[in-house]
Amino acid sequence: MDFTLTAEQRDLQQRVRDFIADTIIPLEQDPRCGAHGPSEDLRRELIAKAKAAGLLSAHVSPEYGGLGLDHRSKAVFFEEAGYSPLGPVALNIAAPDEGNMHMLEAIATEEQKERWLRPLAAGEIRSCFCMTEPDPGAGSDPSMLQTTARQVGDEFLINGRKWFITGAEGATLGIIMAKLEDGRATMFLADMNSPGIRIERTMDALDSCFPGGHCVVSFDNLRVPASAILGELGEGFKYAQVRLSPARLTHCMRWLGQARRCHDVASRYAARRMAFGKALGQHEGVGFMLADNELDMHSARLSIWHTAWILDQGHLGTHESSMAKVIASEATWRVADRSVQVLGGQGVTGETIVARIFSDMRAFRIYDGPSEVHRWSLAKRIFKRNSA
Amino acid sequence: MDFTLTAEQRDLQQRVRDFIADTIIPLEQDPRCGAHGPSEDLRRELIAKAKAAGLLSAHVSPEYGGLGLDHRSKAVFFEEAGYSPLGPVALNIAAPDEGNMHMLEAIATEEQKERWLRPLAAGEIRSCFCMTEPDPGAGSDPSMLQTTARQVGDEFLINGRKWFITGAEGATLGIIMAKLEDGRATMFLADMNSPGIRIERTMDALDSCFPGGHCVVSFDNLRVPASAILGELGEGFKYAQVRLSPARLTHCMRWLGQARRCHDVASRYAARRMAFGKALGQHEGVGFMLADNELDMHSARLSIWHTAWILDQGHLGTHESSMAKVIASEATWRVADRSVQVLGGQGVTGETIVARIFSDMRAFRIYDGPSEVHRWSLAKRIFKRNSA
Amino acid sequence: MDFTLTAEQRDLQQRVRDFIADTIIPLEQDPRCGAHGPSEDLRRELIAKAKAAGLLSAHVSPEYGGLGLDHRSKAVFFEEAGYSPLGPVALNIAAPDEGNMHMLEAIATEEQKERWLRPLAAGEIRSCFCMTEPDPGAGSDPSMLQTTARQVGDEFLINGRKWFITGAEGATLGIIMAKLEDGRATMFLADMNSPGIRIERTMDALDSCFPGGHCVVSFDNLRVPASAILGELGEGFKYAQVRLSPARLTHCMRWLGQARRCHDVASRYAARRMAFGKALGQHEGVGFMLADNELDMHSARLSIWHTAWILDQGHLGTHESSMAKVIASEATWRVADRSVQVLGGQGVTGETIVARIFSDMRAFRIYDGPSEVHRWSLAKRIFKRNSA
Amino acid sequence: MDFTLTAEQRDLQQRVRDFIADTIIPLEQDPRCGAHGPSEDLRRELIAKAKAAGLLSAHVSPEYGGLGLDHRSKAVFFEEAGYSPLGPVALNIAAPDEGNMHMLEAIATEEQKERWLRPLAAGEIRSCFCMTEPDPGAGSDPSMLQTTARQVGDEFLINGRKWFITGAEGATLGIIMAKLEDGRATMFLADMNSPGIRIERTMDALDSCFPGGHCVVSFDNLRVPASAILGELGEGFKYAQVRLSPARLTHCMRWLGQARRCHDVASRYAARRMAFGKALGQHEGVGFMLADNELDMHSARLSIWHTAWILDQGHLGTHESSMAKVIASEATWRVADRSVQVLGGQGVTGETIVARIFSDMRAFRIYDGPSEVHRWSLAKRIFKRNSA
Repeated sequence: MDFTLTAEQRDLQQRVRDFIADTIIPLEQDPRCGAHGPSEDLRRELIAKAKAAGLLSAHVSPEYGGLGLDHRSKAVFFEEAGYSPLGPVALNIAAPDEGNMHMLEAIATEEQKERWLRPLAAGEIRSCFCMTEPDPGAGSDPSMLQTTARQVGDEFLINGRKWFITGAEGATLGIIMAKLEDGRATMFLADMNSPGIRIERTMDALDSCFPGGHCVVSFDNLRVPASAILGELGEGFKYAQVRLSPARLTHCMRWLGQARRCHDVASRYAARRMAFGKALGQHEGVGFMLADNELDMHSARLSIWHTAWILDQGHLGTHESSMAKVIASEATWRVADRSVQVLGGQGVTGETIVARIFSDMRAFRIYDGPSEVHRWSLAKRIFKRNSA
Repeated sequence: MDFTLTAEQRDLQQRVRDFIADTIIPLEQDPRCGAHGPSEDLRRELIAKAKAAGLLSAHVSPEYGGLGLDHRSKAVFFEEAGYSPLGPVALNIAAPDEGNMHMLEAIATEEQKERWLRPLAAGEIRSCFCMTEPDPGAGSDPSMLQTTARQVGDEFLINGRKWFITGAEGATLGIIMAKLEDGRATMFLADMNSPGIRIERTMDALDSCFPGGHCVVSFDNLRVPASAILGELGEGFKYAQVRLSPARLTHCMRWLGQARRCHDVASRYAARRMAFGKALGQHEGVGFMLADNELDMHSARLSIWHTAWILDQGHLGTHESSMAKVIASEATWRVADRSVQVLGGQGVTGETIVARIFSDMRAFRIYDGPSEVHRWSLAKRIFKRNSA
Repeated sequence: MDFTLTAEQRDLQQRVRDFIADTIIPLEQDPRCGAHGPSEDLRRELIAKAKAAGLLSAHVSPEYGGLGLDHRSKAVFFEEAGYSPLGPVALNIAAPDEGNMHMLEAIATEEQKERWLRPLAAGEIRSCFCMTEPDPGAGSDPSMLQTTARQVGDEFLINGRKWFITGAEGATLGIIMAKLEDGRATMFLADMNSPGIRIERTMDALDSCFPGGHCVVSFDNLRVPASAILGELGEGFKYAQVRLSPARLTHCMRWLGQARRCHDVASRYAARRMAFGKALGQHEGVGFMLADNELDMHSARLSIWHTAWILDQGHLGTHESSMAKVIASEATWRVADRSVQVLGGQGVTGETIVARIFSDMRAFRIYDGPSEVHRWSLAKRIFKRNSA
Repeated sequence: MDFTLTAEQRDLQQRVRDFIADTIIPLEQDPRCGAHGPSEDLRRELIAKAKAAGLLSAHVSPEYGGLGLDHRSKAVFFEEAGYSPLGPVALNIAAPDEGNMHMLEAIATEEQKERWLRPLAAGEIRSCFCMTEPDPGAGSDPSMLQTTARQVGDEFLINGRKWFITGAEGATLGIIMAKLEDGRATMFLADMNSPGIRIERTMDALDSCFPGGHCVVSFDNLRVPASAILGELGEGFKYAQVRLSPARLTHCMRWLGQARRCHDVASRYAARRMAFGKALGQHEGVGFMLADNELDMHSARLSIWHTAWILDQGHLGTHESSMAKVIASEATWRVADRSVQVLGGQGVTGETIVARIFSDMRAFRIYDGPSEVHRWSLAKRIFKRNSA
């Protein structure tokens, strides 16, 4: 066992750290950061800066324009990127595009990659992942899928309604999960501007970090050709897993960066702000909170690194990525919450970035599997292991 | 010991509950509910409805147009009012006006009451409490007060800067805490439209339930006459305590109502929404969260009732109101957080009222004394008691 | 709502407090306090002292030699009694006798009461409640009952094995839950010295406060007459409920007293012991723990009082007593644990009484329904209420 | 970063695992396991078995009869050893001997090593570390040291009283921390059978895993020669740090093993025991607890490994070992506590090993620095880092 970063990892770490500090953080107050994420205009400006810095799409292979990092290097890189809410968007490693690119690279045909992956990796277009449905459809339980894909000659007719579709507004590519007539799930690639796709509305949401916000999207006799099938017919759930395990982990990496940002802001404030005769941070009650922040970030980071290593060995890492998701999502949330508390009035207002990160982060304990679903998966494996 | 509600309390409870359900909840999606609270227009409409229902200003004595409830009856009434984020505003029992009215009734001269309390109790004007200052001024530690009041003849010249002043925008009355030349603190009543008062800006904030939002206010040679002194010269901190102990408790009451709302929304969703073969609420993992919600609300309610009883005995209840503040603010927060979690995607979006309450509620663990300050007060009393 | 203690309650509170302080605490280091509870010899000595003080069997009606307290008065009395681990035994209000007496008084025939209740209430004999069975028998789920009662003529033949039977060693009365041939459960009263009853062994246990410890008891063709049936045939589970709801609450009362003892010992130590330049209790980190102790005890006490009031209204209080059990058992545990932590080395050794209470208390989160069973009961009720 | 175990580590892991399972666990119910730890007789028998298995004194260099493991290999080895409460004693890696040997090897003269280290490493003698004192002496704050060492000619006269001295009864070597006349602390090596050393008593304690228990030891004009000084005169606190940082970490390793044992026992029970129609472990409420156990053990293990790696780089690792201590001691405690809860009545009695581990483990959150002291150390470093 060895916790040393490679020279390349240390170099990337420093470069991203500097890029975020020098180039991205100054843009955080840009008025183009709206309730539904940075505007397309701002996003393109950010992408251009990252491209100039040679830091674009770190998870994509060089063949498609990225840096081709393995999971462990991503752990280092993405944490730095997450230090600003704008960082992942700038570096083109934000959800859902990052996971979509990963899945396309793993599963898509060469033709599909040229059409969708290449411009995605260049940050020219955005994508969305249309899986979650309104009640009584697919949520945490994907088997409840309601959207249908009926084969009509060479084409498929897709009908249904999706919900909480991040980034749909403004996306060019939609990856749509639908149920075949035989009940098996399949993913289709579609141009979001196709007739038959309608963005009903953009939802109000606690977070504001995802370009395009979260949308309700309906498919009304959307026609897609057989060439739009992603991978094999009927293998939709399997591919969702291919997407999910690493996508879940990259979420952890990015949010760890945001937690560290909160902690740094709170720590600096606590070192400076006086109350009751000494600096806030010299009060044990406050100091303990900051110590707990470091303990939480340490646990989150180590579990992320460990799972990244598992994935780099070629394993699926389902158990480990569930553990990392629960540990990291709950630990980073506590960090954000404590940072708000240490900051007091500063923490619940826009005076610092912390309130924004706090609001952005709440959904992290829910998406890519709520803590409860992961705990239940872990429990089922423990039960099975002990029932033999 | 007896936990029976009086017939009058039960009657008020039902009337407020019906009023909220029938009249206020339908207005929650009104577009006039903005980022900085309901508009003045909407507020006046809400007040009119409450007045028509005979439920206005329950904490103010009948002499000044209220219902004259004691603290225990307020506990019942305010919890029901809090069931909607708009409820306290409608019933004219929202912070900071509620606490300001309470303090005016306890301390102000007859003339001051006629000028300020009467229109406040009628919901015709709003008020703000100008105490908190930006770093390095008064926050949790009021002794760090920077704003000064210099006597010049019959007048006082007030200079300084306040921060996180809830409801300042649109308020008619400002209650300003300032330091005399001898260092003692004094409260002054001022018309917010006076020359010398400037609202620098309205702050971005996590919450959106307070009309007027939270503002930065500066005083630049504000002139007030001696008749504007609230109570005795130099007794500002004592009066702040008169305001704080009950104001802290009414916060607890209102937020308990909001927590119950979150819990009800989540419980109903959990009873209906299917996942993995049964209703969400039939999963122990979810059911336990809802059970914990009830345990938390029960503890919060009992500690509120207990402190209300202490206050009704004429005691200051400093120790008890600190306990109630910590218990209720932390318990209701956990309820809101669990409700978000149970609701999943619904919880982090505007699909239900829960996300809004969740955002509104975060500051409650901070204002009127953060949990840490109350714990420290309790600890000091424990230490003293055991050191004798 | 009113939290005032009656004059009688205040008087009893003071008398028990004095009795514990003056008479019982000095006996805590008595060598007759063994691993399986105080010896019968010590117990009789304690009972004699309580009798002399006029404080024996507070929960039993005066007709049978007790003080006839209602539930609310018991809440006050039992908390004081619990301030010493020996207090409940001395005052003859310890589990399981206290609950057994309560049930006998509610259900037994006059003849049964004379034979069993009267000497129990006088502290002359002890009793045990034989319900729990070893795997795969009745534990948290009473429906898994394995012990059988077969009617043979006028008699019943009882066969089975019980486990974790508190106080069996040395008990004169055994209340035995068994399953009839038709599957219904029934309770029988038996002399523990009957042929057919064998105490297999006394179990090692974390606690050492119950006279007789916890035993494994087997019934091998135990013969009991029909007159030994408690109440109606086949109503065993119903009566278990009659016993459980108040028995659960009296547990809460007694353990609250023990928690307060831990807190007092820790608070005094923290006020005296120096570390890093000031008293332990002047360190916020320690002071916050003591503050949390008071918050936890406050919540526990209020929920106990509330449930006692419910029971005094003649209600079963199943929901409320579940809430009180979870709140009180978890809160008092945290108090004991924090007190150990504050005391450091003193806390984990026999230097103070706290380590003993800590060990004694752990099982409280398990018996009379583990927290998980109560949470699930609460959850089912919430689900049902919201599914209508 | 790499989490791979070396072939040697995997081999040792398996060998220790087998040794514990086959040889040590069967002895756990040996009646020679008393309230103050295994008897000397049993200890020697255990040592003989470990020696035969070639697994003795893994942390000592081969030169002195050990396996010479680095910190990372110890992390693997000690966790396996800790799977039984008797394991560390058998393998001669239990506290306090293990830390004492480590310190002797690092600091002692060759002569001192031959006299003390060699027989210690062979398991022929035991040692104790005499640092902690009764109030008002040295506890968490070592600067409060009261025991004095006065130089008289070539000798030192030691006077004072120590407390909570683990293993003193039966120890041959005592390492005594005392204050010189100039106030500097120094460590002395003494034969515990020397005139002037008296073991006043063995304390009652929650734990029962340390041979010799915890004792009160007094020094009354104990005479030691200058050759008994460990290292340099006046450097006692520095050496205590040399001992503490790794000693703290080996504690974490061993206790992690014990936590895993608890979890395994509870998991197997949960997979088998039925309640309410299914296995306990199939209830989410129970399954979540077991999942949390795995999350906690994962975090503990990763933080231990990380700190071991830091120490293997030659760093002191003060910050990291503080983090590992807090994370591991609190996580393993939660694991033990949840395991008790899952086991119900089995958990609070001697029916399984879990109750014993639970009692043994409580002190771990206190010794080698209570969580509060570590949090405060972390906080001070955070403050300093942010104040620059």
